[in-house]
Order: sequence, then structure tokens, then C-alpha cells
Amino acid sequence: MKTRRSDRLVDMARYLLEHPRQLISLSFFAQRYESAKSSISEDLSIIKRTFDERGTGLLHTVPGAAGGVRFISAMSQAEAQEFVAGLCTMVADETRVLPGGYVYLSDILGRPDILRPAGRLITSQYLDCEIDAVMTAATKGIPLAQAVAEELNVPFVIVRDDAKVTEGPMVSVNYLTGSSKRVEKMALSRRSLKPGARVLIVDDFMKAGGTIQGMQTLVHEFDGTVVGTAVFAEGRSTVRLLDNFTSLLHVETNLANGEPIRVNPGNFEQEIYQ
Amino acid sequence: MKTRRSDRLVDMARYLLEHPRQLISLSFFAQRYESAKSSISEDLSIIKRTFDERGTGLLHTVPGAAGGVRFISAMSQAEAQEFVAGLCTMVADETRVLPGGYVYLSDILGRPDILRPAGRLITSQYLDCEIDAVMTAATKGIPLAQAVAEELNVPFVIVRDDAKVTEGPMVSVNYLTGSSKRVEKMALSRRSLKPGARVLIVDDFMKAGGTIQGMQTLVHEFDGTVVGTAVFAEGRSTVRLLDNFTSLLHVETNLANGEPIRVNPGNFEQEIYQ
Repeated sequence: MKTRRSDRLVDMARYLLEHPRQLISLSFFAQRYESAKSSISEDLSIIKRTFDERGTGLLHTVPGAAGGVRFISAMSQAEAQEFVAGLCTMVADETRVLPGGYVYLSDILGRPDILRPAGRLITSQYLDCEIDAVMTAATKGIPLAQAVAEELNVPFVIVRDDAKVTEGPMVSVNYLTGSSKRVEKMALSRRSLKPGARVLIVDDFMKAGGTIQGMQTLVHEFDGTVVGTAVFAEGRSTVRLLDNFTSLLHVETNLANGEPIRVNPGNFEQEIYQ
Repeated sequence: MKTRRSDRLVDMARYLLEHPRQLISLSFFAQRYESAKSSISEDLSIIKRTFDERGTGLLHTVPGAAGGVRFISAMSQAEAQEFVAGLCTMVADETRVLPGGYVYLSDILGRPDILRPAGRLITSQYLDCEIDAVMTAATKGIPLAQAVAEELNVPFVIVRDDAKVTEGPMVSVNYLTGSSKRVEKMALSRRSLKPGARVLIVDDFMKAGGTIQGMQTLVHEFDGTVVGTAVFAEGRSTVRLLDNFTSLLHVETNLANGEPIRVNPGNFEQEIYQ
């Protein structure tokens, strides 16, 4: 049945939000709503205006016969700063500091209302990148990686330190942990990543960066390319095995002056869209 | 600034979709859009009509001074059947069968375009339930648990078989694996679940149900209540430790007649909303 504009706007907004980064042809919408392409175009300009005003993300129109519209989930600089300031307050709680200087973050990384904007902020740093998959390390990187993958609308793959019977054939690599200088092993199921994929690495916490370096090696074993590396929080480390990464938070524990924990915004800012 | 109806519809739809199960007052929207409550009410009836027609979910209006509107993510019976039929075709692939009769599912459980509807289908079975948290077991249950938690807008907690230094104080229980009759241990960080919570247990695969029974014990250790148990797939098992669960798929491998894998819809159907 032919639909009214108001109904089209509601459903089209939902459809776009659920299919980020996917090119959707005007014909698809014209057919879905039994409406003329000219009406669909007008609807899209209304949606674009609202998304712009509310900082929901970008609506790109691709002209031509093979064209259409693509919604790109994104967060503005202002919203990102406000969100990260809130995270800083939440994490800067000395009861989160565990023996060894580790920081308890599992409650925060189990909240959809935090993971969603965190994923949106991270993907905002890769607006113009083609990304085929998100990679993370089990267990604690998974929630953030999934949140990022949702905003990119691509699969996420989980690297493990043990080969489970339910994973099938796996590709494994050895890597050096940065802090303790031990040689460890990590593995990824062969089926889970297509050869040649463009991969965004996501993890919860980075100290020296050994795990992330291991994942980079693994991407190369699959003939893939590392598009970038994003972590929720970076900690203090005397060694740092890699430089090219972005973080939402910078966390220091057990400081020389006796302060139990100090949390600051990470280095994400300079790369975000305005 | 005062907004036009079309802009309000787009942004209000997005806001409701991102805050499922949360009661939102009309005053909140009236203020957000600098519009009269009567206009907001009309907007909401348009959104409700579209959500109904497109099977997006339910929009409940709560009258009175403390009232407002609540969006409940849900999937219709027809959409659920179509979605599960697609899953059956995808899983019924003999190359997924691993030694021991295990089934490779990690690629499917790493796709946001499958996890989102799977989460929506599972929550459709608990439309009238108050749920405070979702619980799952590391590692493979996490993606589905997160997808379910997103649709419910509640935190998810991850039970582990090892106590990591980054989890802090943990509560652990022993449980009996159903198939091998071994006694295992699982633990949950004390901070991650509030005492007395109403918990939905979610996992990827269930054979005898030992892991799920372990999680039920853990919920009781936190003085909580198990609201329900939902798994992506149930396998064949000679023993079954629990009956009260729902599954999207029923998977059998290495059948007596030589068939490598047989996949059928699980037992979800009878509880879904019409």
C-alpha cells in the first residue's frame, strides 16, 4: 500500500539506522513504500537535516544509476568530549583499582548504553575507511568490538589463547607480551576471517600493546590489512610496542604521589569529525 | 528551537529505538522539541501506527502524571519463522560439523545483521517480564547475550571458568557437566551483578545443560531470580538436565542414517507475540 510521508519517515529512519554504511538504492525505498522516487528524495533530505541537527550521523547521497543513500553512524566532537568526560568520572574510582594496578572495567563494558556511544565514537574516527571486519581478543575485548562492528555493519572475529574443539581449523601466531616478556600464543579460526580483509583491531585495555601486536601479525597471516587500532583505555607502560592507536581513556594507577587512580581523555580527539 | 513534525518523527523514532523498555515522559519530548504535549501525543500515535504496521515492536503508552511512553522491541511470529528458516539453511551445512559432533557457529554469531534480529526474537518471548540483567558464559555466549541485552536495555554479565586478575573479588560455584559428568567451576565478579536481580540466561549452544545449570546456581548465590533461559541452538543429548528453556534452532549431527547434520527450528515459537 502507498504510504504517508510521516510513516515513511519513521520507517526509513529506522531502516537506515539498522543498516549503517550500506548503500541503499532509492528504488528499494520506492518499492518498499510504493512511492515515487521524487517523494523518497524529499523524505531523505528531511532525514538528513534531522540527523545533521541532532548529531546522529551522516547521510551520504551517491548519485547515478548505481547510486543511493548511505547512513554513516558518527558522533560530533562536542558529544564525544561530553561522553568521554562522563567515562572519566565513572572510571576514576579508587575501588576499581585491583592488585597489580589493574582496573576493573567489566561492569562498564557490560552496559549497552555505554557500549553504543563508545562504538559510535570509535567508528567516527574511521569515517572514510573501508573496513571489512573488526578483530578483538577474548574475553574482555568482545563487547566493545561487537559495539563497533554494529556501527560499521561488518562481522567481528574473536582471537583466542586456546584452541577450542568448537572452532575447527585455526591459524595461530606467537607474540611477546610487552610487560612480562613472555612468549604467548593466540589463534583465530580459519573460517572466521576472509583472506585479504581490511581489519580494525579493537580491545578493552592496552598497556605495552603486546596483544595488539599479536593481532596485527595474525591479520597479516590472513593476508589482510590493519586499518587501525582502537582501545577503550590505555594504561601506563614503561615499554610501548606500538604508537599508532587511538584510546578513549588514559588511565594511570598507583602514582608516585600516592594517588590511587588518575583518568584522563585518551588521544581520540584529533581524528574525530567536526 | 521549535521543530517541525517531520523532524520530530525522525528523531523521536531514533530516540525510542535506542532506549527500548525505558519509560520516557511526554514532558521530556515536549522539552526536547519545544513542542506542546498534544503535538507529541499525535507524533507518538503516528510512530505507533508505523511500528505496528512494520513489525518493529510495541509502543506502550502509560497514562497519568508519572506516565509516558515505552518502546518494546519485538518480532512478529511471521518474521520470526522466516528469520529462523534462514538460519536453518545457513547452519545445515556439513562443513560446519567438527570432530566430536560439534558445530561451527562462530561466523554466524559474529554478524551484527544476524545478532540483532536474534536478540529481538529472544526478547519477544519475554515481553511482559521485568529483567534486570542478562547472564552468559564466556566466550561464545557473549555476542548473543550482548545482542539480547541491547534490546532489553539492561547490562549483561559474563561468567568465566578462570579467575582473571582484572575481575576483582569473584563468587564461584561448582557444577556438573551433563555430558562428561566432570565437576567444573565457574565464577562471576562480585561487582558485576546486583543482589536480587531478575536474570535472563543466554547461551550459544546447549547439550545437556550443565553450564546453564551452573549459571542458575550462580544467580541464586547472588540472591537473584532466573527469569528464563534462551539458547541459540540446542543439540541432541542423551541426558538433559533442564527443561525450561527456549531455543532458536535444534541441531543434530552424525545421525544414525549417516546424515552429517540436520537443523530444525527450536522450540521458541509457542511463546512469541502474535
